[in-house]
Amino acid sequence: MSITLGQYIFERMNQLHVKTIFGVPGDFNLLLLDYISKVPGMRWAGNANELNAAYAADGYSRVTRLGCIVTTFGVGELSALNGIAGAYAEQVGLVHIAGVPATSSQNNRLLLHHTLGNGDFTVYRKIKMSAHLLNVNVMLKDITTAPSEIDRCIREAYIHQRPVYIGLPTNLVDIEVPRSLLDTEIDLTLPETNAAAEEEVVSRVLDLIKGADNPIIIVDACCARHGCRGEAQKLIELTQFPTFTTPMGKGAVNESHPRFGGVYLGDLSSPDVKEFVNNKADLIISLGAVLSDFNTGAFTHRFSTNDLIEVHSDYTKIRNATYERIQMKHVLNTLLGKIGSAIKDYKPVELHFPSLKQKIPSASGTGKVSQEYLWKAVAKFFREDDIVITETGTSSFGIVQSKFPNETLGISQVLWGSIGYTVGATLGALMAAEESKKPSRRVILFIGDGSLQLTVQEISTMCKWNLKPYLFVLNNNGYTIERLIHGEKASYNDVQPWKHLKLLDLFNAQDYENITVNTDKELDELFTDQKFAKNDKIRMIELHLEEMDAPISLIEQANKTSQTNAS
Amino acid sequence: MSITLGQYIFERMNQLHVKTIFGVPGDFNLLLLDYISKVPGMRWAGNANELNAAYAADGYSRVTRLGCIVTTFGVGELSALNGIAGAYAEQVGLVHIAGVPATSSQNNRLLLHHTLGNGDFTVYRKIKMSAHLLNVNVMLKDITTAPSEIDRCIREAYIHQRPVYIGLPTNLVDIEVPRSLLDTEIDLTLPETNAAAEEEVVSRVLDLIKGADNPIIIVDACCARHGCRGEAQKLIELTQFPTFTTPMGKGAVNESHPRFGGVYLGDLSSPDVKEFVNNKADLIISLGAVLSDFNTGAFTHRFSTNDLIEVHSDYTKIRNATYERIQMKHVLNTLLGKIGSAIKDYKPVELHFPSLKQKIPSASGTGKVSQEYLWKAVAKFFREDDIVITETGTSSFGIVQSKFPNETLGISQVLWGSIGYTVGATLGALMAAEESKKPSRRVILFIGDGSLQLTVQEISTMCKWNLKPYLFVLNNNGYTIERLIHGEKASYNDVQPWKHLKLLDLFNAQDYENITVNTDKELDELFTDQKFAKNDKIRMIELHLEEMDAPISLIEQANKTSQTNAS
Repeated sequence: MSITLGQYIFERMNQLHVKTIFGVPGDFNLLLLDYISKVPGMRWAGNANELNAAYAADGYSRVTRLGCIVTTFGVGELSALNGIAGAYAEQVGLVHIAGVPATSSQNNRLLLHHTLGNGDFTVYRKIKMSAHLLNVNVMLKDITTAPSEIDRCIREAYIHQRPVYIGLPTNLVDIEVPRSLLDTEIDLTLPETNAAAEEEVVSRVLDLIKGADNPIIIVDACCARHGCRGEAQKLIELTQFPTFTTPMGKGAVNESHPRFGGVYLGDLSSPDVKEFVNNKADLIISLGAVLSDFNTGAFTHRFSTNDLIEVHSDYTKIRNATYERIQMKHVLNTLLGKIGSAIKDYKPVELHFPSLKQKIPSASGTGKVSQEYLWKAVAKFFREDDIVITETGTSSFGIVQSKFPNETLGISQVLWGSIGYTVGATLGALMAAEESKKPSRRVILFIGDGSLQLTVQEISTMCKWNLKPYLFVLNNNGYTIERLIHGEKASYNDVQPWKHLKLLDLFNAQDYENITVNTDKELDELFTDQKFAKNDKIRMIELHLEEMDAPISLIEQANKTSQTNAS
Repeated sequence: MSITLGQYIFERMNQLHVKTIFGVPGDFNLLLLDYISKVPGMRWAGNANELNAAYAADGYSRVTRLGCIVTTFGVGELSALNGIAGAYAEQVGLVHIAGVPATSSQNNRLLLHHTLGNGDFTVYRKIKMSAHLLNVNVMLKDITTAPSEIDRCIREAYIHQRPVYIGLPTNLVDIEVPRSLLDTEIDLTLPETNAAAEEEVVSRVLDLIKGADNPIIIVDACCARHGCRGEAQKLIELTQFPTFTTPMGKGAVNESHPRFGGVYLGDLSSPDVKEFVNNKADLIISLGAVLSDFNTGAFTHRFSTNDLIEVHSDYTKIRNATYERIQMKHVLNTLLGKIGSAIKDYKPVELHFPSLKQKIPSASGTGKVSQEYLWKAVAKFFREDDIVITETGTSSFGIVQSKFPNETLGISQVLWGSIGYTVGATLGALMAAEESKKPSRRVILFIGDGSLQLTVQEISTMCKWNLKPYLFVLNNNGYTIERLIHGEKASYNDVQPWKHLKLLDLFNAQDYENITVNTDKELDELFTDQKFAKNDKIRMIELHLEEMDAPISLIEQANKTSQTNAS
């Protein structure tokens, strides 16, 4: 008939299919952790540190739409903060629960450990509020309102795809609340749309489409993040407009579709894509765009405001007019219902995108592995349902050149760009993939030797759970992305060389494989090896690459970044 | 005749004997990093991640009184934040320099990577300001005032022993300022003392001493942190008052002095110490006290306000009266000059502290290593000038039982208690010890297998610099301190078992030794082995301990913590 508040919070997460809770134990959250195992099918990941846990919850959420991290007060929540900020910047739904001292300790301003020594227990909430890193943050104090406050936080995280914070004092964890509260599901309906504005938006969009000769669609990250991948796909099917994506949007659209044209990133796009988007298109329907430096070829996107419709998660912009309170999902569905008449005179142009048709090269069999070869050849290895995770650096820039099969999920932190992120995110994606009941769903990480060092211990958590990722370590002797920006020979861009292939043994992996790749022939054999293709063990693949070899888009981006920094 | 602003900042650090700069490169700080190597004798540590770098700068500062960390904007500074907060809580002087985007990018609110995507570049400063984690924080904008702003920040960090933040836009780094500015040293004089108040303080202190039969001195952490170790020692010599320290104060006083009585931590003190402080002493002169839970046996210190003089870094409290603007160093020196007359009738009592005289036990030769045995036996191994670093957990509680030789520096984060701290701090202490031109100065770390996992990669940086610490890993299968508080058998207190003795090889250590200790006899032999005593290589010593074995003070503390959390 009743249930503890501690269990209540996890039952709520469970109702939204969050089955793994990430975090690190600490004395202010231990009572709470007891309740994770009380929820059938739920597990405590037990991360190696809090920043990694936040990254993992972020990676998990990108697969499932919601993630959860539990930390202790003070030390734990501050360690996680960079990961929480990344979830804010990149629009990822996350619930951060911090176990905090008992309300009596807070009221008496006790000089507890994990405090700043000044009796102020509110600094952590202030940190996050003032930074606008959270949509909601609450410190629970009153058991009668606690369940509804929890529900409100979870709702906000889910529908806005942003992090929220719940401070849970130790003395409230074991207090009981009515179990019947769980019978009413958390309301996840989107905020109400401004109907009059939506009508105007749809009408203007239809008019612009009617007047256009070469309309195109660009699907970007926030379209997928706000659950509109399906609506975007239907729009492409109905209209047959040529479609593009962006570095952040990789995986948000079916790249095998005949009307897919490639990845647009301003002047750093391949010449055929650049020519089409910049010069041929006379109307751009942009879905969920994030116009950040690394997503636009250093702001070289050439959209004319006159030709632009920007559909964002909760507003739409047409030419210079902004329409507030327009929900992306809602407006797209309305548009899908009415678009037929607008496109009846549209004659699909024949598309020629040589960059997409490039034959995957065969290895010459003598040469070293080049970045150019790697990112083209890896397309042979990818298959439907893969989750492909690329670290900021040569990997996140290189993957733009790799064609994804349909239903491939790309994960990369293109805007926030916190190096080391992907090791945690890989753990999170692995847990989510395992729970999706598709054991064949593969999680494939590409990370450089420099970034790996920041968060390496989270591979241990993968070993603990007997997960089976592909961990490609691109060993190019340090921070190549930094060398390209500044300090090619500077020792600050070196890292201590590690014996990477000893990591899995160190972390006590039970069933693992280590592979070294020195030549393009070896790489080619690997990517076509059927045994390797089966994700039946954890694998570390160390690729030896030249120090200054990089995808051409990164080289150009680095030049531009270097100029901006000096100006 | 002129010098770039980038070099200016490091020349200023160098004038204060800061020779190692900690941090991680990022594109917004690369230009700045070029200038480290322009300052003779200065080096860039090149940490594995930013949190570790902050811990390292903190450890360095505890040896030298000032530390410096350079991070990039956004991601880097947020990752470091928990380490910065720890320096605030524990009063450690730290200069945090963040390389931030060019002023023009900030003014144009560009959607750069490492931003939250909302054009607001000030959130990081707000984060730190609102949290009161910093004494000063500035965002440099104007080259004409930049040098004096830098000087002001460094001064604040040094004299208040707190972290400060300097945001340095990329476009200002290469701009030149007059080199002659360096000719005037940064003013490090303490803020002016309230002379009238100080006179009253000294007079009242002298009166209280005259009226006391059994005055005692307790030397705590902030006494050492604010550079008053020498004054405290003189006070003990002149007065011959019985002297105690606290867990946080370990190493702040000469424990070999005949008037040293032991470590006071309320009801968790050894019986003889507890009896003396609680019942015999009729006046307590407390120097630099931090009355936090873990430093006072969970608030069981029995000081009567009537018998208490608290000398803090910038104020003094006598009974119920607080005197503001009294500098500890100044007031102690004034007191030292006048105390002769007050103590002329004081007859030093004979001291009996059996707990101090306990013979270091010999190994029975058959048993496993117990925590009780370890922390007594290790005193055989310690020698003058050692830096002994203990991680929060069984180590920080156990070390209280170990007698230190004179001039031993103890480092532990007793108030902030962020697990994993000590790996970074050990690196920082090693760099500082190396620069002190005493190659025999040893740095000895004690850390549990659980805490090690949070920050393990910083051992790689020790290998890179060919440093020679003793790394004692107390392997007791997980978070023993948490098991004692709650969840003895809970899986959330387990950690993935690692093969610790493979770490040094993985990190490419050049000259190293791995040692496993299973029995008290093996431990005893190690602690008396002359070859082992010489710090001529990096050593990892894995001690196998029972899961629930812990120092008695920790067991009692855990009980009390558990009660407080539930209340």
